[in-house]
Amino acid sequence: MDRLKEECGVFGIFNNKDAASLTALGLHALQHRGQEACGIITCDEKKFFYERRLGLVSDNFTKDKVLKNLVGKHAIGHNRYSTSGNNLVKNVQPFYADLHDGGIAIAHNGNLSNALNLRKELVRNGSIFQTTSDTETIVQLIAKSNRSKMIDKIIDTLFKIQGGYALTILMNNELIGIRDPFGIRPLVLGKLNKSYVLASETCAFDIIGAKFLREIENGEIIIINKNGFKSIKPFPKIKERPCIFEYIYFSRPDSIIKNKSFYEYRKKMGAQLAKESHFKADLIIPVPDSGVPAAIGYAEEIKNNLELGIIRNHYVGRTFIEPTQQIRSLGVKLKHNVNKSLIKDKSVILIDDSLVRGTTSVKILKMLYENGAREVHLKIASPPIKYPDYYGVDTPNKNELLAATHNLEEMRKFINATSLQFLSIEGLYKSMGFEKRDSAYPQFTDHCFTGEYPIEPLDANNKNSINKKVSLISSNA
Amino acid sequence: MDRLKEECGVFGIFNNKDAASLTALGLHALQHRGQEACGIITCDEKKFFYERRLGLVSDNFTKDKVLKNLVGKHAIGHNRYSTSGNNLVKNVQPFYADLHDGGIAIAHNGNLSNALNLRKELVRNGSIFQTTSDTETIVQLIAKSNRSKMIDKIIDTLFKIQGGYALTILMNNELIGIRDPFGIRPLVLGKLNKSYVLASETCAFDIIGAKFLREIENGEIIIINKNGFKSIKPFPKIKERPCIFEYIYFSRPDSIIKNKSFYEYRKKMGAQLAKESHFKADLIIPVPDSGVPAAIGYAEEIKNNLELGIIRNHYVGRTFIEPTQQIRSLGVKLKHNVNKSLIKDKSVILIDDSLVRGTTSVKILKMLYENGAREVHLKIASPPIKYPDYYGVDTPNKNELLAATHNLEEMRKFINATSLQFLSIEGLYKSMGFEKRDSAYPQFTDHCFTGEYPIEPLDANNKNSINKKVSLISSNA
Amino acid sequence: MDRLKEECGVFGIFNNKDAASLTALGLHALQHRGQEACGIITCDEKKFFYERRLGLVSDNFTKDKVLKNLVGKHAIGHNRYSTSGNNLVKNVQPFYADLHDGGIAIAHNGNLSNALNLRKELVRNGSIFQTTSDTETIVQLIAKSNRSKMIDKIIDTLFKIQGGYALTILMNNELIGIRDPFGIRPLVLGKLNKSYVLASETCAFDIIGAKFLREIENGEIIIINKNGFKSIKPFPKIKERPCIFEYIYFSRPDSIIKNKSFYEYRKKMGAQLAKESHFKADLIIPVPDSGVPAAIGYAEEIKNNLELGIIRNHYVGRTFIEPTQQIRSLGVKLKHNVNKSLIKDKSVILIDDSLVRGTTSVKILKMLYENGAREVHLKIASPPIKYPDYYGVDTPNKNELLAATHNLEEMRKFINATSLQFLSIEGLYKSMGFEKRDSAYPQFTDHCFTGEYPIEPLDANNKNSINKKVSLISSNA
Amino acid sequence: MDRLKEECGVFGIFNNKDAASLTALGLHALQHRGQEACGIITCDEKKFFYERRLGLVSDNFTKDKVLKNLVGKHAIGHNRYSTSGNNLVKNVQPFYADLHDGGIAIAHNGNLSNALNLRKELVRNGSIFQTTSDTETIVQLIAKSNRSKMIDKIIDTLFKIQGGYALTILMNNELIGIRDPFGIRPLVLGKLNKSYVLASETCAFDIIGAKFLREIENGEIIIINKNGFKSIKPFPKIKERPCIFEYIYFSRPDSIIKNKSFYEYRKKMGAQLAKESHFKADLIIPVPDSGVPAAIGYAEEIKNNLELGIIRNHYVGRTFIEPTQQIRSLGVKLKHNVNKSLIKDKSVILIDDSLVRGTTSVKILKMLYENGAREVHLKIASPPIKYPDYYGVDTPNKNELLAATHNLEEMRKFINATSLQFLSIEGLYKSMGFEKRDSAYPQFTDHCFTGEYPIEPLDANNKNSINKKVSLISSNA
Repeated sequence: MDRLKEECGVFGIFNNKDAASLTALGLHALQHRGQEACGIITCDEKKFFYERRLGLVSDNFTKDKVLKNLVGKHAIGHNRYSTSGNNLVKNVQPFYADLHDGGIAIAHNGNLSNALNLRKELVRNGSIFQTTSDTETIVQLIAKSNRSKMIDKIIDTLFKIQGGYALTILMNNELIGIRDPFGIRPLVLGKLNKSYVLASETCAFDIIGAKFLREIENGEIIIINKNGFKSIKPFPKIKERPCIFEYIYFSRPDSIIKNKSFYEYRKKMGAQLAKESHFKADLIIPVPDSGVPAAIGYAEEIKNNLELGIIRNHYVGRTFIEPTQQIRSLGVKLKHNVNKSLIKDKSVILIDDSLVRGTTSVKILKMLYENGAREVHLKIASPPIKYPDYYGVDTPNKNELLAATHNLEEMRKFINATSLQFLSIEGLYKSMGFEKRDSAYPQFTDHCFTGEYPIEPLDANNKNSINKKVSLISSNA
Repeated sequence: MDRLKEECGVFGIFNNKDAASLTALGLHALQHRGQEACGIITCDEKKFFYERRLGLVSDNFTKDKVLKNLVGKHAIGHNRYSTSGNNLVKNVQPFYADLHDGGIAIAHNGNLSNALNLRKELVRNGSIFQTTSDTETIVQLIAKSNRSKMIDKIIDTLFKIQGGYALTILMNNELIGIRDPFGIRPLVLGKLNKSYVLASETCAFDIIGAKFLREIENGEIIIINKNGFKSIKPFPKIKERPCIFEYIYFSRPDSIIKNKSFYEYRKKMGAQLAKESHFKADLIIPVPDSGVPAAIGYAEEIKNNLELGIIRNHYVGRTFIEPTQQIRSLGVKLKHNVNKSLIKDKSVILIDDSLVRGTTSVKILKMLYENGAREVHLKIASPPIKYPDYYGVDTPNKNELLAATHNLEEMRKFINATSLQFLSIEGLYKSMGFEKRDSAYPQFTDHCFTGEYPIEPLDANNKNSINKKVSLISSNA
Repeated sequence: MDRLKEECGVFGIFNNKDAASLTALGLHALQHRGQEACGIITCDEKKFFYERRLGLVSDNFTKDKVLKNLVGKHAIGHNRYSTSGNNLVKNVQPFYADLHDGGIAIAHNGNLSNALNLRKELVRNGSIFQTTSDTETIVQLIAKSNRSKMIDKIIDTLFKIQGGYALTILMNNELIGIRDPFGIRPLVLGKLNKSYVLASETCAFDIIGAKFLREIENGEIIIINKNGFKSIKPFPKIKERPCIFEYIYFSRPDSIIKNKSFYEYRKKMGAQLAKESHFKADLIIPVPDSGVPAAIGYAEEIKNNLELGIIRNHYVGRTFIEPTQQIRSLGVKLKHNVNKSLIKDKSVILIDDSLVRGTTSVKILKMLYENGAREVHLKIASPPIKYPDYYGVDTPNKNELLAATHNLEEMRKFINATSLQFLSIEGLYKSMGFEKRDSAYPQFTDHCFTGEYPIEPLDANNKNSINKKVSLISSNA
Repeated sequence: MDRLKEECGVFGIFNNKDAASLTALGLHALQHRGQEACGIITCDEKKFFYERRLGLVSDNFTKDKVLKNLVGKHAIGHNRYSTSGNNLVKNVQPFYADLHDGGIAIAHNGNLSNALNLRKELVRNGSIFQTTSDTETIVQLIAKSNRSKMIDKIIDTLFKIQGGYALTILMNNELIGIRDPFGIRPLVLGKLNKSYVLASETCAFDIIGAKFLREIENGEIIIINKNGFKSIKPFPKIKERPCIFEYIYFSRPDSIIKNKSFYEYRKKMGAQLAKESHFKADLIIPVPDSGVPAAIGYAEEIKNNLELGIIRNHYVGRTFIEPTQQIRSLGVKLKHNVNKSLIKDKSVILIDDSLVRGTTSVKILKMLYENGAREVHLKIASPPIKYPDYYGVDTPNKNELLAATHNLEEMRKFINATSLQFLSIEGLYKSMGFEKRDSAYPQFTDHCFTGEYPIEPLDANNKNSINKKVSLISSNA
């Protein structure tokens, strides 16, 4: 599908006899953040136990024989969305290393913007990398740090790395949660009875019945051990600037941040979109499922009928990977069908949450027209995406972003919509409860709309050289 | 989940060079009718080619290496929902037999109500059964018929079997579609360029771009060959009486019957439910996804807010089969979560399409209360289910049907709802455009609500003896 | 390899609490009779339990989780060598059928020479065949017999079938062993404590510590039940005429018949070969492993050095099925290597047990010459094979048998041997302790050497029509 | 089985368009040196390509789809016998590392006697180990060396490691072969047309038709590149001292060293054994297959009958890993059966190549007696093993070695032999063509018999601490 992709979900729990099962459940709730692979590492304070699998949590971590290998009362876990085609088991997180002072396991959501530079220097000094992952760079830096205490080795490393990161780290007797200085990637703290829990989103607390305590702050390190938890803030204090796509698309609608569910923020974006256009038609149709909250907000605001004009087929299998040409040509029809008796001869408002390449919109509008729609007015509940991300969101190259190369009218023509409207950037900030965007210190990381990058993307120009560096091609491992 | 289950979807196509791929696509669109297994048989007019698999169509029939084994321009296919735990590959349909006059392949949606009696007599006369399926009884009867022409052997067989059935039959040079005398199970006829197509529902035509021509009538045989198609009606003419659950739940909302989509019928059931109660609350919440159309109808009728108060996790894997006790105890939470900031301290109308055992409703209401709902008014968009089915719908035993053993108030208490309301039987018929139920010749097979069975369920009392008959236990095959 | 192939091994045990494990062991000892697949059916006097697998017994039937599915104190088992490429699980024996009077399972070693005719008639009368196997014909005939007692249905069937067969049959309360009227295929009776045991060879008794009682006689039926065993001989008495290849090649060297091991018969064939030629050379080399007993006999008779001049690689994997062209071109070298420092500049006597197509001999001699052998005198410890078999030995077509199309000198040239010698047919009979071959009533089924077939091979000319009959092509099942 | 185990086979080829296929063939010929896993790395001078598998070469590396992933004209390969139960894919060799100056792949046969000390220091300085293998220590040392040229980094490393090793190393443009200073582990050089080849034994040259040039000398480095090969000898010159077990048991009988096949050395050991005892009996029986060459030598020397009194079952599957108690109790019978009609009431000489724990001998003698042997005289064609190895031979702990804890008469009683004889240490040296053992500078590494270790086994006392170091338990990876 033509969407932005999140690059991971993380989870951690300390001091619970069902650590592995609870981690599996937490990862299941976070599955939307990464569906290619999942891994869990547990620790019984002496040894670490590891299971990692390609595929869904619910296909891999529900069996007794898998869970019983994961001994111990502390655990971290990771859901992975692969940015490259390189979906090998050895790239599945968490990463683990036997250091001189004991084992350390790390799960990482995000992307470092200077990993390549760091890696080159490490290799020059004799470090052997097993993967092409940013996360291994973090591990190697920790191993090489000549500070004596583990927490100091970690802080030492944080001062070297740049970019977006939410980390859960497991050592013999401690679970650590870390969020980058801008808080670009999310991480929340919860409690289940006497056990502290870390997760990318609060929905992972709901599934296990844990209580949501608070967000980890930007630049904060939370150290959990037998004595409870303590907070360290090694960086100079700056304003948080979380990734705006968590609000628009990534986070599950039932996860909560700043006292509201993401469903509510998205309904507001739809309502704001209605306020900015005041446009009615015969009926309003969401692109399922991501456009539904905004469509409900739009319909409610403007008192227009909401209808399920597009039906989604939930049975698109996970191995739909070698389709024949015939099947491929059907494209979007494998996933969607139009409710044709509803839309015949109608003027339709079609609502989606975002527009990336525009290729899926083209297919959906074509399908609507073929089934008799008279007019299709496409409304996008976020601003045009014009710039790529480098901190953990998988965006296409700039020249593949429709809004980077087309103006509004060109986009409308490309998609063949009767009309096309985006939510304004100011409208977006209003939907989230701000009067306006603070142009000096923006409240969110929103460079994909504005081009204002919070951190210089050092590796970006060197992207090709990174790939050249991978000189081992292996079909297994 | 606590639902009625359909026992299959069928498909057939004649004279198309992409017969196998198109059948795979048709089965993919019909996946909701059976998710355990699927099979396709093709014919090149000399030989038959067979692939059958456990699992989804999209996981099994999208690969070139599978499809290229399926040679020939004619094909039939089948999606299976297993009524027993017996999900062996050898039970996967279509069934095939080498008869004296050539091969014959049969895909069957439905259930025979006298299969056991027929089977016993066949075995007594030397027939060897390979499976426990009704469908094999049909095949064995055809093989044993002493009529000389194949079509006569088939008609001979139809006069012996009783129950609900929609059949697609493939022979060397002919594709046949058959619907039982009451038309209990559905079958529709379509055309893709010069190729005739058969399917359980019209959504299978949409995915391949075929045109919907008409329903196969109750008791009708359609014979498709090089010369086009012809219709035979061997039975005395009676009024059709299709299964009412196709309208309430089974068929895909975008499939069309009598010029309307099932989505529209279901929206009408929701609207009728509103008319029968005139009840408003703080917000209306559908049980996703099956309660959504009725909830939209209800909300629109009564001008009440519709909200996504329950969020569904789409990543429940297909191998969620060996959950640990811990995971099992979480029950419904693996699939659903409550949007808690929405429902806190609210009075809620919860809408679902039907109520079977009530066990899922119990869990969902519990979850709503735990997340702060003040009142939960449960509204069911169909009447109470009091009687089991024997013609192709998988219903629990009568004593497991909540409405068979509890009156309305007892049900309300069991579920712990603030109030409980069902759609009336007359309201149900109204939603489908009838003034009233014709008590002499009911327009639908509705015995699950009324106890009026159209055909005597001969085998029903002997059900145990059937199972005893299965004396081979095999973990493979 | 260029060898004749046996078509199966059978086993049966009655009334032993470890029936399944003992059957697995028996089949392991009989593995040389069929390596493609194996199956076991057990019976607890109420139900039958079945496991069948492609591959070796020791890879499939040693795990607790497999054996524990095989409940009951009675069992039969089967090792299969597939004559066609059709190695599907559904063709794996034993065969099972639910008859009116209960279940019946059959394992069959041998081949019927009139199966096609019988099958055609059965299909014409409404029998549905699931496989292309002869054995299913036996099962269908039993099902169709209108005799009332099971043993009479079986005898009824025996009078219809022709060819070579050793059968083990399991019913609720009885285990039956049957050998064809000529005793072409072998079957022996043993006892383990209180349990009677049936097997193709005595080596299957040794592995489980059972005592060898006697051979089942030609045309004899042994019925084993709670009361012990009884013998029925429904056919007119004729002289036995077992397959001579059991002595030359098929049976394991440690199996015993008429008080001698097959190793001893084969050593005698080697000694007789020496007596017929009186030829010495620098050293004697067996083709491993089949030529070793004859080579020991030859060397001992003529006082010549025996040396392991050819070393066999035991690690030829079972999935050596998709070799590249490069690997394929190496042919015999994957399995054998020459001990080159031994044979350099030497005159060598090379001894093998039989010669079929001659293709392997060509490669072995080439390899010997390339490694420096000066002369290679090839001696075959059996007569030239000129005629195909139809009773259970997989022979190539007549025109592929080297001796059917070449005289001795032509064969020598083809193989490029310095000299070539076969054991005489009279010498073969002498090695087995007979003064001479009884030309009126030959003591063995030896038509491959003599062309004297004991039973007319009815289906042989119709072989193509059988294959045409198989009209379902399935990659699974 | 009760045997010593080799710890690996290595192979390498430079500049051949079929490098991967030829390596697969070479590894197939070396399969006896390690049957648990195999791996091949190829190089196209830019990238490296890797396939590694658990199981046999012939089950894994014969398929086109595997071999075609292995691009390039240079390759190394490795067969692995796992010393621990830790048979994970990630431990499969060759090992690979991306160093600053390019990739390097290493395959290693042998064992380092100071790996633990080296590893501890590396970890202390920030190296992250992925495995528990000695070989990774070599790789990490190379990565850390601050010499600038790769060959110097390698030599730097050789001066740090101690023990037995034969290495094949592949870099972008060079293939390197190295043998430890004593030449404990073997390595030979060959040529196939214009391509140089390295292998553990000459049998790997025979299978691909390569010419055997010479042994790599002890302490020698052979560097193969486009310009041919050159030899470097960085160590002070000392006398070679190869592992004597290569002669007694490990190497394939058809491999050649010092102009003779190992078959011939072993026949001589058998003949020498006969000279040391002059003992005859009714017949001589080898323990198959390892005792056969010595038995032929013994029989020929003393003019006594050699007979195949024990028959080996070649079908012992590779997954015979979860046997039931019943199957386990049968022990040796799964692999061997006695040719009982041969040995009944006979006095037997039983010949084997070596005696380790004695447990298998106990079972074989028991089996012989049970089948009627009157006397069994056990003769071992090598001296008593009293000391464990640390340079690449997997020996049991000292207290499990029968000869370490029992004198000759105690051993005879333990095994229940009528008499027991070992080859003398001087006799062993004579069999290999030496007048006597040079006690000052022994010609072979023979500490298992004599206790004279050529290198101090530094890690030996710390063995437990190594295992404690492994703190990650993973069922996959």
